[in-house]
Amino acid sequence: MMRALALSAGLLLAGCAQTAATTAPTAPSAEVIASQVGEKPTPTSPPAGQQWLYGSAEGAIASAQVYRTMADYVRMAAISAAPRRQVVLAEGSTPTAPKFDDCGDKPLAAVFDADETLIWNLGAMRYFAEQGKDFDPAIWDQWEKTGAGKAVAMPGVIDALAIMRGAGVTIIVNTNRSAANPKGSEDTLRAAGLGDFKHGETLFLMGDTPDGASKDGRRALIASRWCVIAMGGDQLGDFAQAFNARGLSVADRRTMATSGPVAGLWGHGWFLLSNPVYGPSIRGGFADIFPSDKQWEPN
Amino acid sequence: MMRALALSAGLLLAGCAQTAATTAPTAPSAEVIASQVGEKPTPTSPPAGQQWLYGSAEGAIASAQVYRTMADYVRMAAISAAPRRQVVLAEGSTPTAPKFDDCGDKPLAAVFDADETLIWNLGAMRYFAEQGKDFDPAIWDQWEKTGAGKAVAMPGVIDALAIMRGAGVTIIVNTNRSAANPKGSEDTLRAAGLGDFKHGETLFLMGDTPDGASKDGRRALIASRWCVIAMGGDQLGDFAQAFNARGLSVADRRTMATSGPVAGLWGHGWFLLSNPVYGPSIRGGFADIFPSDKQWEPN
Repeated sequence: MMRALALSAGLLLAGCAQTAATTAPTAPSAEVIASQVGEKPTPTSPPAGQQWLYGSAEGAIASAQVYRTMADYVRMAAISAAPRRQVVLAEGSTPTAPKFDDCGDKPLAAVFDADETLIWNLGAMRYFAEQGKDFDPAIWDQWEKTGAGKAVAMPGVIDALAIMRGAGVTIIVNTNRSAANPKGSEDTLRAAGLGDFKHGETLFLMGDTPDGASKDGRRALIASRWCVIAMGGDQLGDFAQAFNARGLSVADRRTMATSGPVAGLWGHGWFLLSNPVYGPSIRGGFADIFPSDKQWEPN
Repeated sequence: MMRALALSAGLLLAGCAQTAATTAPTAPSAEVIASQVGEKPTPTSPPAGQQWLYGSAEGAIASAQVYRTMADYVRMAAISAAPRRQVVLAEGSTPTAPKFDDCGDKPLAAVFDADETLIWNLGAMRYFAEQGKDFDPAIWDQWEKTGAGKAVAMPGVIDALAIMRGAGVTIIVNTNRSAANPKGSEDTLRAAGLGDFKHGETLFLMGDTPDGASKDGRRALIASRWCVIAMGGDQLGDFAQAFNARGLSVADRRTMATSGPVAGLWGHGWFLLSNPVYGPSIRGGFADIFPSDKQWEPN
């Protein structure tokens, strides 16, 4: 059940096409089977990913480290005198053949996803986990509307945003929360201590552009007004939709991101927060995850 | 079952006291119950933590980012003319009242854990997961002996070690792999492309000092010979055993690491790799993980 939750939630928030083929796990887990025959195991503890991410020292440190690195980078980039380029891929270019436009004299910005990038959605994630529920879009819609105060700034975020804003960089959020709930998301970010965001100016939501769950259109809109010198996200769609192309295998997706021309951006303009709880990263069978030449058995 | 595997493996490799009280999960998962009544669900895909860490682009990037940051830091620290201090806690001092000794003119070193810090143990972890087995110390012992070539350097490691070595910094491994298997671990690190390590000189194993699974004794030994300017690990025992003290709640352990005097070391001398697959980070019930004032329900 947790695996189905992870997969569905990730697909919704990650901009992947919603079809039966992509929302169904490769094969159901034991817990999903149990629920399908009428037994709902009541979870006695959160799934391991949540224990690590939301509960542990290590999960907190992982977030704080990235935000410290990102703040240092943005502060240096902001005072740099060199001609600037966007870190948003130019429209029509791709991670394998990237192009980055000159900024001219646009004002500086750093663009962030929201969920499990700037904030941890503790209220909703605990609710789903305790109820043993799959991710439910109707419940998530209520969460967007009423959850302000029950999501928290991730470790390191508040200090990092202060440093970046102090360096003259505007913070912009590009999230797949719904354009139907702008006030709920503005209130949620404010209640988490992240300051004021205004829909259409510093907050962009799913529905703002015609490409739906893809963030590319919104990135192009943002880059038409701002010089984006850094981006933060917890899954690759927060950087370019091409990484979540249908039919891209687990291995090829990883290669696309970690080899070739964009590989040097990670930690140097593109900053990824660890999220092993949900998202398009949570997929694959044994043969997808493990290279065949690394198999081992005891004697 | 995956949760039991995560807990047991983590306790063994993390230096925690092995007692029934600490090795038993708070309550058994549905899979553990199934196995206890004679049914072994055959896992159809790896657990979500493994999908994220070993398979996904995001898990690879999370590793590469930390290693890029660490290499930058170590290179700068190595050319710094300032008098140096250890990043190893002085013997007898603690994270809440830390003391860091002057280095004098000891040669420079960076100290790393091995498992899921420098290398991913793909062979053994796939075997355990596919077999639906709990972490088994006897099987792990065989893995230490025969697994060379089936573990891989984590993303970013090889470049980072080259940069650090190029800056005159010696790489030292401090791991809870067993002192009974020095050749197996030397071979494993070499086969993963990390170069040569020599037990007792640049490789320290569990059993080398009388404090067993605690790494503090070995850290003191290393710091008596080297100026340790950076440390890398995937769990807090890789930095100080005090973080894994018995009886420390999830929340207090997190506070100890992320507040107070050592908080500033993360990303600036202490570097943590994300590992949501196993370790002392994978623990806690709902009340341990989620603050009570962040509870939410839909209408």
